[in-house]
Amino acid sequence: MNPERTALLIIDMQRDFLSPASPLFVAGGPSIVLTVQHALESAWAAGVTVVHVRRNHRPGGIDIDSTRRQLFAEEGGLLVAGTPGAEEISELMPASGDLIVTKTRWSAFFATDLDLLLRRLAIHELVLSGVQTPNCIRATAMDAVSLDYATIVLSDATASQTPEIQAANLADMTTMGISVKTVSQFARSLGL
Amino acid sequence: MNPERTALLIIDMQRDFLSPASPLFVAGGPSIVLTVQHALESAWAAGVTVVHVRRNHRPGGIDIDSTRRQLFAEEGGLLVAGTPGAEEISELMPASGDLIVTKTRWSAFFATDLDLLLRRLAIHELVLSGVQTPNCIRATAMDAVSLDYATIVLSDATASQTPEIQAANLADMTTMGISVKTVSQFARSLGL
Repeated sequence: MNPERTALLIIDMQRDFLSPASPLFVAGGPSIVLTVQHALESAWAAGVTVVHVRRNHRPGGIDIDSTRRQLFAEEGGLLVAGTPGAEEISELMPASGDLIVTKTRWSAFFATDLDLLLRRLAIHELVLSGVQTPNCIRATAMDAVSLDYATIVLSDATASQTPEIQAANLADMTTMGISVKTVSQFARSLGL
Repeated sequence: MNPERTALLIIDMQRDFLSPASPLFVAGGPSIVLTVQHALESAWAAGVTVVHVRRNHRPGGIDIDSTRRQLFAEEGGLLVAGTPGAEEISELMPASGDLIVTKTRWSAFFATDLDLLLRRLAIHELVLSGVQTPNCIRATAMDAVSLDYATIVLSDATASQTPEIQAANLADMTTMGISVKTVSQFARSLGL
Protein backbone atom coordinates (compact mmCIF):
# COMPACT_ATOMS: atom_id res chain seq x y z
CA MET A 1 0.00 0.00 0.00
CA ASN A 2 1.43 3.36 -1.04
CA PRO A 3 0.59 5.86 1.74
CA GLU A 4 0.79 8.78 -0.66
CA ARG A 5 -1.98 7.36 -2.82
CA THR A 6 -4.19 6.19 0.06
CA ALA A 7 -6.89 7.93 2.09
CA LEU A 8 -8.56 6.81 5.31
CA LEU A 9 -12.21 7.87 5.53
CA ILE A 10 -13.76 8.16 8.97
CA ILE A 11 -17.49 8.25 8.39
CA ASP A 12 -20.25 9.56 10.68
CA MET A 13 -18.42 9.06 13.98
CA GLN A 14 -20.64 11.74 15.50
CA ARG A 15 -22.36 11.96 18.85
CA ASP A 16 -25.86 11.42 17.44
CA PHE A 17 -24.81 8.03 16.05
CA LEU A 18 -22.79 7.00 19.11
CA SER A 19 -24.94 8.08 22.05
CA PRO A 20 -27.36 5.43 23.34
CA ALA A 21 -30.03 8.06 24.02
CA SER A 22 -30.10 9.25 20.40
CA PRO A 23 -32.77 7.97 17.99
CA LEU A 24 -29.95 7.46 15.48
CA PHE A 25 -27.80 5.35 17.84
CA VAL A 26 -25.89 2.53 16.13
CA ALA A 27 -25.63 -0.25 18.71
CA GLY A 28 -22.28 -1.54 17.48
CA GLY A 29 -20.76 1.94 17.35
CA PRO A 30 -19.21 2.47 20.79
CA SER A 31 -17.21 -0.75 20.55
CA ILE A 32 -15.23 0.45 17.51
CA VAL A 33 -14.07 3.81 18.85
CA LEU A 34 -10.64 2.50 19.87
CA THR A 35 -10.08 0.58 16.64
CA VAL A 36 -11.03 3.61 14.53
CA GLN A 37 -8.62 5.60 16.68
CA HIS A 38 -5.95 2.98 15.95
CA ALA A 39 -6.64 3.34 12.20
CA LEU A 40 -6.47 7.13 12.50
CA GLU A 41 -3.15 7.08 14.36
CA SER A 42 -1.75 4.57 11.86
CA ALA A 43 -2.75 6.84 8.98
CA TRP A 44 -1.14 9.85 10.64
CA ALA A 45 2.04 7.89 11.37
CA ALA A 46 2.36 6.71 7.76
CA GLY A 47 1.39 9.94 6.05
CA VAL A 48 -1.94 8.62 4.73
CA THR A 49 -4.50 11.33 3.93
CA VAL A 50 -7.35 11.37 6.45
CA VAL A 51 -10.84 12.53 5.54
CA HIS A 52 -13.39 13.03 8.29
CA VAL A 53 -16.81 12.61 6.68
CA ARG A 54 -19.68 13.99 8.72
CA ARG A 55 -23.41 14.11 8.18
CA ASN A 56 -24.70 17.65 8.68
CA HIS A 57 -28.18 19.05 8.13
CA ARG A 58 -29.64 22.54 7.90
CA PRO A 59 -31.84 23.56 10.87
CA GLY A 60 -35.05 23.43 8.85
CA GLY A 61 -34.28 19.94 7.58
CA ILE A 62 -34.74 20.71 3.89
CA ASP A 63 -31.70 18.51 3.22
CA ILE A 64 -32.72 15.50 5.34
CA ASP A 65 -33.33 12.17 3.59
CA SER A 66 -37.02 11.93 2.76
CA THR A 67 -37.18 8.69 4.77
CA ARG A 68 -36.19 10.61 7.92
CA ARG A 69 -38.29 13.71 7.41
CA GLN A 70 -40.81 12.72 10.06
CA LEU A 71 -38.16 11.79 12.61
CA PHE A 72 -36.38 15.09 12.00
CA ALA A 73 -39.59 17.00 12.72
CA GLU A 74 -40.39 14.94 15.82
CA GLU A 75 -36.90 15.42 17.24
CA GLY A 76 -36.72 19.09 16.35
CA GLY A 77 -33.60 18.40 14.29
CA LEU A 78 -31.01 15.67 13.72
CA LEU A 79 -27.30 16.24 13.18
CA VAL A 80 -27.86 19.95 12.68
CA ALA A 81 -24.55 21.68 11.98
CA GLY A 82 -23.28 23.44 15.08
CA THR A 83 -25.32 21.42 17.57
CA PRO A 84 -23.67 18.95 20.00
CA GLY A 85 -25.22 15.92 18.30
CA ALA A 86 -23.46 16.74 15.03
CA GLU A 87 -20.00 16.90 16.61
CA GLU A 88 -17.46 14.23 15.85
CA ILE A 89 -16.53 12.37 19.03
CA SER A 90 -13.54 13.79 20.89
CA GLU A 91 -11.47 10.59 20.48
CA LEU A 92 -11.27 11.19 16.73
CA MET A 93 -10.72 14.93 16.44
CA PRO A 94 -8.93 15.94 13.22
CA ALA A 95 -5.29 16.90 13.07
CA SER A 96 -4.49 20.14 11.27
CA GLY A 97 -3.73 18.41 7.95
CA ASP A 98 -6.89 16.31 7.89
CA LEU A 99 -9.72 17.04 5.49
CA ILE A 100 -13.36 17.41 6.51
CA VAL A 101 -16.25 16.69 4.14
CA THR A 102 -19.87 17.12 5.14
CA LYS A 103 -22.66 15.18 3.48
CA THR A 104 -26.43 14.84 3.66
CA ARG A 105 -26.92 11.32 2.33
CA TRP A 106 -25.58 7.79 2.86
CA SER A 107 -22.73 7.94 0.37
CA ALA A 108 -19.82 10.25 1.15
CA PHE A 109 -19.64 10.92 -2.59
CA PHE A 110 -23.27 11.97 -3.04
CA ALA A 111 -23.46 15.73 -3.72
CA THR A 112 -20.08 16.38 -2.08
CA ASP A 113 -16.64 17.39 -3.35
CA LEU A 114 -14.97 14.24 -2.00
CA ASP A 115 -14.14 12.85 -5.45
CA LEU A 116 -12.65 16.18 -6.54
CA LEU A 117 -10.42 16.35 -3.47
CA LEU A 118 -9.21 12.77 -3.90
CA ARG A 119 -8.47 13.30 -7.61
CA ARG A 120 -6.46 16.43 -6.84
CA LEU A 121 -4.40 14.42 -4.36
CA ALA A 122 -4.01 11.52 -6.84
CA ILE A 123 -5.48 9.14 -4.27
CA HIS A 124 -6.12 5.68 -5.68
CA GLU A 125 -6.95 3.59 -2.62
CA LEU A 126 -9.68 4.23 -0.04
CA VAL A 127 -9.89 2.69 3.41
CA LEU A 128 -13.32 3.02 5.02
CA SER A 129 -14.16 3.17 8.72
CA GLY A 130 -17.08 4.39 10.81
CA VAL A 131 -20.83 3.78 10.99
CA GLN A 132 -23.01 2.23 9.94
CA THR A 133 -21.96 -0.61 7.69
CA PRO A 134 -25.21 -1.35 5.79
CA ASN A 135 -25.93 2.29 5.02
CA CYS A 136 -23.16 4.88 4.79
CA ILE A 137 -20.20 2.50 4.65
CA ARG A 138 -21.76 0.33 1.95
CA ALA A 139 -23.12 3.23 -0.13
CA THR A 140 -19.71 4.91 0.00
CA ALA A 141 -17.93 1.66 -0.89
CA MET A 142 -20.21 1.08 -3.88
CA ASP A 143 -19.62 4.60 -5.19
CA ALA A 144 -15.89 4.25 -4.55
CA VAL A 145 -15.69 1.07 -6.64
CA SER A 146 -17.84 2.67 -9.35
CA LEU A 147 -15.37 5.57 -9.45
CA ASP A 148 -12.46 3.11 -9.78
CA TYR A 149 -10.93 3.50 -6.34
CA ALA A 150 -9.36 0.37 -4.87
CA THR A 151 -11.61 0.00 -1.85
CA ILE A 152 -10.97 -1.53 1.56
CA VAL A 153 -13.50 -1.77 4.39
CA LEU A 154 -12.10 -2.18 7.90
CA SER A 155 -14.06 -5.02 9.49
CA ASP A 156 -13.28 -4.07 13.10
CA ALA A 157 -13.51 -0.30 12.58
CA THR A 158 -17.01 -0.32 11.08
CA ALA A 159 -20.21 -1.21 12.92
CA SER A 160 -23.88 -2.10 12.53
CA GLN A 161 -26.93 -2.52 14.76
CA THR A 162 -26.21 -6.25 15.23
CA PRO A 163 -23.27 -8.63 14.61
CA GLU A 164 -25.45 -10.50 12.09
CA ILE A 165 -26.03 -7.38 9.98
CA GLN A 166 -22.31 -6.57 10.19
CA ALA A 167 -21.33 -10.07 9.03
CA ALA A 168 -23.88 -10.22 6.20
CA ASN A 169 -22.81 -6.84 4.84
CA LEU A 170 -19.10 -7.66 4.97
CA ALA A 171 -19.86 -10.93 3.17
CA ASP A 172 -21.87 -9.12 0.46
CA MET A 173 -19.10 -6.58 -0.06
CA THR A 174 -16.44 -9.29 -0.26
CA THR A 175 -18.49 -10.97 -3.00
CA MET A 176 -18.62 -7.64 -4.83
CA GLY A 177 -14.84 -7.50 -4.92
CA ILE A 178 -14.43 -5.03 -2.08
CA SER A 179 -11.49 -5.88 0.17
CA VAL A 180 -12.23 -6.41 3.86
CA LYS A 181 -9.33 -6.09 6.32
CA THR A 182 -8.73 -5.54 10.01
CA VAL A 183 -7.13 -2.40 11.37
CA SER A 184 -4.04 -4.45 12.28
CA GLN A 185 -3.73 -5.63 8.69
CA PHE A 186 -4.12 -2.03 7.49
CA ALA A 187 -1.38 -0.88 9.87
CA ARG A 188 0.93 -3.71 8.79
CA SER A 189 0.39 -2.90 5.12
CA LEU A 190 1.69 0.59 5.95
CA GLY A 191 4.82 -0.94 7.47
CA LEU A 192 3.80 -0.10 11.04
CA MET B 1 -50.07 4.94 -6.21
CA ASN B 2 -50.43 7.39 -9.09
CA PRO B 3 -49.47 5.52 -12.30
CA GLU B 4 -48.55 8.76 -14.05
CA ARG B 5 -45.91 9.56 -11.46
CA THR B 6 -44.56 6.01 -11.15
CA ALA B 7 -41.88 4.09 -13.05
CA LEU B 8 -41.09 0.38 -13.00
CA LEU B 9 -37.38 -0.35 -13.43
CA ILE B 10 -36.39 -3.76 -14.79
CA ILE B 11 -32.71 -4.11 -14.00
CA ASP B 12 -30.12 -6.41 -15.62
CA MET B 13 -32.54 -9.13 -16.75
CA GLN B 14 -30.01 -10.13 -19.41
CA ARG B 15 -28.85 -13.51 -20.61
CA ASP B 16 -25.41 -13.28 -18.99
CA PHE B 17 -27.04 -12.93 -15.57
CA LEU B 18 -29.72 -15.56 -16.15
CA SER B 19 -27.87 -18.38 -17.92
CA PRO B 20 -26.44 -21.05 -15.61
CA ALA B 21 -23.35 -21.43 -17.80
CA SER B 22 -22.41 -17.74 -17.47
CA PRO B 23 -19.77 -16.65 -14.93
CA LEU B 24 -22.18 -13.86 -13.96
CA PHE B 25 -25.13 -16.20 -13.33
CA VAL B 26 -27.38 -15.15 -10.43
CA ALA B 27 -28.72 -18.39 -8.95
CA GLY B 28 -32.04 -16.89 -7.88
CA GLY B 29 -32.63 -15.20 -11.22
CA PRO B 30 -34.53 -17.76 -13.30
CA SER B 31 -37.19 -18.16 -10.62
CA ILE B 32 -38.28 -14.50 -10.86
CA VAL B 33 -38.79 -14.27 -14.62
CA LEU B 34 -42.54 -14.82 -14.40
CA THR B 35 -43.02 -12.41 -11.50
CA VAL B 36 -41.03 -9.69 -13.28
CA GLN B 37 -43.20 -10.36 -16.32
CA HIS B 38 -46.27 -9.94 -14.10
CA ALA B 39 -44.92 -6.61 -12.85
CA LEU B 40 -44.19 -5.53 -16.43
CA GLU B 41 -47.67 -6.41 -17.66
CA SER B 42 -49.21 -4.66 -14.66
CA ALA B 43 -47.24 -1.52 -15.42
CA TRP B 44 -48.28 -1.60 -19.07
CA ALA B 45 -51.95 -2.15 -18.11
CA ALA B 46 -51.95 0.79 -15.69
CA GLY B 47 -49.94 3.22 -17.80
CA VAL B 48 -46.87 3.14 -15.53
CA THR B 49 -43.61 4.18 -17.24
CA VAL B 50 -41.31 1.20 -17.78
CA VAL B 51 -37.54 1.57 -17.90
CA HIS B 52 -35.41 -1.38 -19.00
CA VAL B 53 -32.01 -0.90 -17.42
CA ARG B 54 -29.25 -2.97 -18.98
CA ARG B 55 -25.57 -3.36 -18.25
CA ASN B 56 -23.56 -2.93 -21.43
CA HIS B 57 -19.80 -2.79 -21.91
CA ARG B 58 -17.51 -1.75 -24.74
CA PRO B 59 -15.65 -4.62 -26.43
CA GLY B 60 -12.26 -3.64 -25.01
CA GLY B 61 -13.66 -3.48 -21.49
CA ILE B 62 -12.43 0.02 -20.67
CA ASP B 63 -15.76 0.62 -18.93
CA ILE B 64 -15.89 -2.59 -16.86
CA ASP B 65 -15.83 -2.29 -13.06
CA SER B 66 -12.22 -2.52 -11.91
CA THR B 67 -13.20 -5.48 -9.72
CA ARG B 68 -14.18 -7.44 -12.84
CA ARG B 69 -11.32 -6.43 -15.11
CA GLN B 70 -9.60 -9.81 -14.81
CA LEU B 71 -12.80 -11.77 -15.40
CA PHE B 72 -13.58 -9.65 -18.45
CA ALA B 73 -10.16 -10.45 -19.93
CA GLU B 74 -10.42 -14.16 -19.13
CA GLU B 75 -13.86 -14.42 -20.69
CA GLY B 76 -12.98 -12.29 -23.70
CA GLY B 77 -15.80 -9.91 -22.81
CA LEU B 78 -18.84 -9.70 -20.53
CA LEU B 79 -22.17 -8.10 -21.45
CA VAL B 80 -20.63 -6.52 -24.53
CA ALA B 81 -23.24 -4.48 -26.40
CA GLY B 82 -24.55 -6.38 -29.40
CA THR B 83 -23.50 -9.84 -28.20
CA PRO B 84 -26.07 -12.49 -27.18
CA GLY B 85 -25.08 -12.36 -23.50
CA ALA B 86 -26.01 -8.69 -23.28
CA GLU B 87 -29.53 -9.22 -24.63
CA GLU B 88 -32.49 -8.81 -22.34
CA ILE B 89 -34.36 -12.11 -22.04
CA SER B 90 -37.17 -12.58 -24.54
CA GLU B 91 -39.87 -12.80 -21.84
CA LEU B 92 -39.30 -9.14 -20.96
CA MET B 93 -38.87 -7.47 -24.33
CA PRO B 94 -39.78 -3.76 -24.29
CA ALA B 95 -43.01 -2.40 -25.72
CA SER B 96 -42.67 0.54 -28.07
CA GLY B 97 -43.28 3.13 -25.35
CA ASP B 98 -40.77 1.70 -22.89
CA LEU B 99 -37.49 3.44 -22.15
CA ILE B 100 -34.10 1.75 -22.27
CA VAL B 101 -31.13 2.94 -20.22
CA THR B 102 -27.71 1.30 -20.40
CA LYS B 103 -25.26 1.46 -17.53
CA THR B 104 -21.76 0.27 -16.65
CA ARG B 105 -21.95 0.14 -12.88
CA TRP B 106 -24.19 -1.24 -10.11
CA SER B 107 -26.47 1.78 -9.76
CA ALA B 108 -28.81 2.58 -12.63
CA PHE B 109 -28.20 6.25 -11.81
CA PHE B 110 -24.40 6.12 -12.00
CA ALA B 111 -23.17 7.99 -15.11
CA THR B 112 -26.52 7.55 -16.90
CA ASP B 113 -29.34 9.89 -17.89
CA LEU B 114 -31.93 7.99 -15.84
CA ASP B 115 -32.51 10.85 -13.40
CA LEU B 116 -32.93 13.35 -16.23
CA LEU B 117 -35.53 11.16 -17.94
CA LEU B 118 -37.49 10.62 -14.74
CA ARG B 119 -37.46 14.34 -13.91
CA ARG B 120 -38.74 15.20 -17.37
CA LEU B 121 -41.60 12.77 -16.84
CA ALA B 122 -42.29 14.11 -13.34
CA ILE B 123 -41.89 10.62 -11.92
CA HIS B 124 -41.90 10.56 -8.13
CA GLU B 125 -42.13 6.86 -7.28
CA LEU B 126 -39.77 4.07 -8.40
CA VAL B 127 -40.52 0.37 -8.32
CA LEU B 128 -37.42 -1.83 -8.64
CA SER B 129 -37.20 -5.33 -10.09
CA GLY B 130 -34.45 -7.54 -11.51
CA VAL B 131 -31.04 -8.83 -10.42
CA GLN B 132 -29.17 -8.92 -8.24
CA THR B 133 -30.50 -7.61 -4.97
CA PRO B 134 -27.26 -6.95 -3.01
CA ASN B 135 -25.55 -5.16 -5.89
CA CYS B 136 -27.52 -3.38 -8.61
CA ILE B 137 -30.90 -3.34 -6.89
CA ARG B 138 -29.51 -2.03 -3.63
CA ALA B 139 -27.16 0.52 -5.23
CA THR B 140 -30.03 1.81 -7.36
CA ALA B 141 -32.38 1.94 -4.37
CA MET B 142 -29.85 3.90 -2.30
CA ASP B 143 -29.34 6.44 -5.07
CA ALA B 144 -33.10 6.66 -5.64
CA VAL B 145 -33.72 7.52 -1.98
CA SER B 146 -30.83 9.98 -2.02
CA LEU B 147 -32.46 11.67 -5.01
CA ASP B 148 -35.80 11.86 -3.13
CA TYR B 149 -37.73 9.23 -5.09
CA ALA B 150 -40.23 7.20 -3.08
CA THR B 151 -38.67 3.79 -3.54
CA ILE B 152 -40.21 0.33 -3.59
CA VAL B 153 -38.33 -2.94 -4.05
CA LEU B 154 -40.34 -5.91 -5.28
CA SER B 155 -39.44 -8.82 -2.98
CA ASP B 156 -40.53 -11.58 -5.38
CA ALA B 157 -39.30 -9.86 -8.55
CA THR B 158 -35.71 -9.37 -7.36
CA ALA B 159 -33.18 -12.12 -6.73
CA SER B 160 -29.83 -12.98 -5.17
CA GLN B 161 -27.39 -15.89 -5.14
CA THR B 162 -29.08 -17.41 -2.06
CA PRO B 163 -32.36 -16.95 -0.16
CA GLU B 164 -30.33 -15.84 2.88
CA ILE B 165 -28.66 -13.00 0.96
CA GLN B 166 -32.04 -11.99 -0.47
CA ALA B 167 -33.66 -11.89 2.99
CA ALA B 168 -30.78 -10.02 4.64
CA ASN B 169 -30.76 -7.37 1.93
CA LEU B 170 -34.52 -6.86 2.01
CA ALA B 171 -34.30 -6.52 5.79
CA ASP B 172 -31.50 -3.93 5.54
CA MET B 173 -33.44 -1.92 2.97
CA THR B 174 -36.60 -2.01 5.07
CA THR B 175 -34.60 -0.61 7.98
CA MET B 176 -33.36 2.17 5.70
CA GLY B 177 -36.94 3.25 4.97
CA ILE B 178 -37.18 1.59 1.58
CA SER B 179 -40.55 -0.01 0.99
CA VAL B 180 -40.60 -3.75 0.16
CA LYS B 181 -43.70 -5.14 -1.57
CA THR B 182 -44.73 -8.17 -3.60
CA VAL B 183 -45.72 -7.91 -7.25
CA SER B 184 -49.33 -8.70 -6.26
CA GLN B 185 -49.31 -5.76 -3.85
CA PHE B 186 -47.86 -3.54 -6.58
CA ALA B 187 -50.60 -4.63 -9.01
CA ARG B 188 -53.31 -4.06 -6.42
CA SER B 189 -52.01 -0.59 -5.63
CA LEU B 190 -52.52 0.17 -9.33
CA GLY B 191 -56.14 -0.93 -9.08
CA LEU B 192 -55.52 -4.16 -11.02
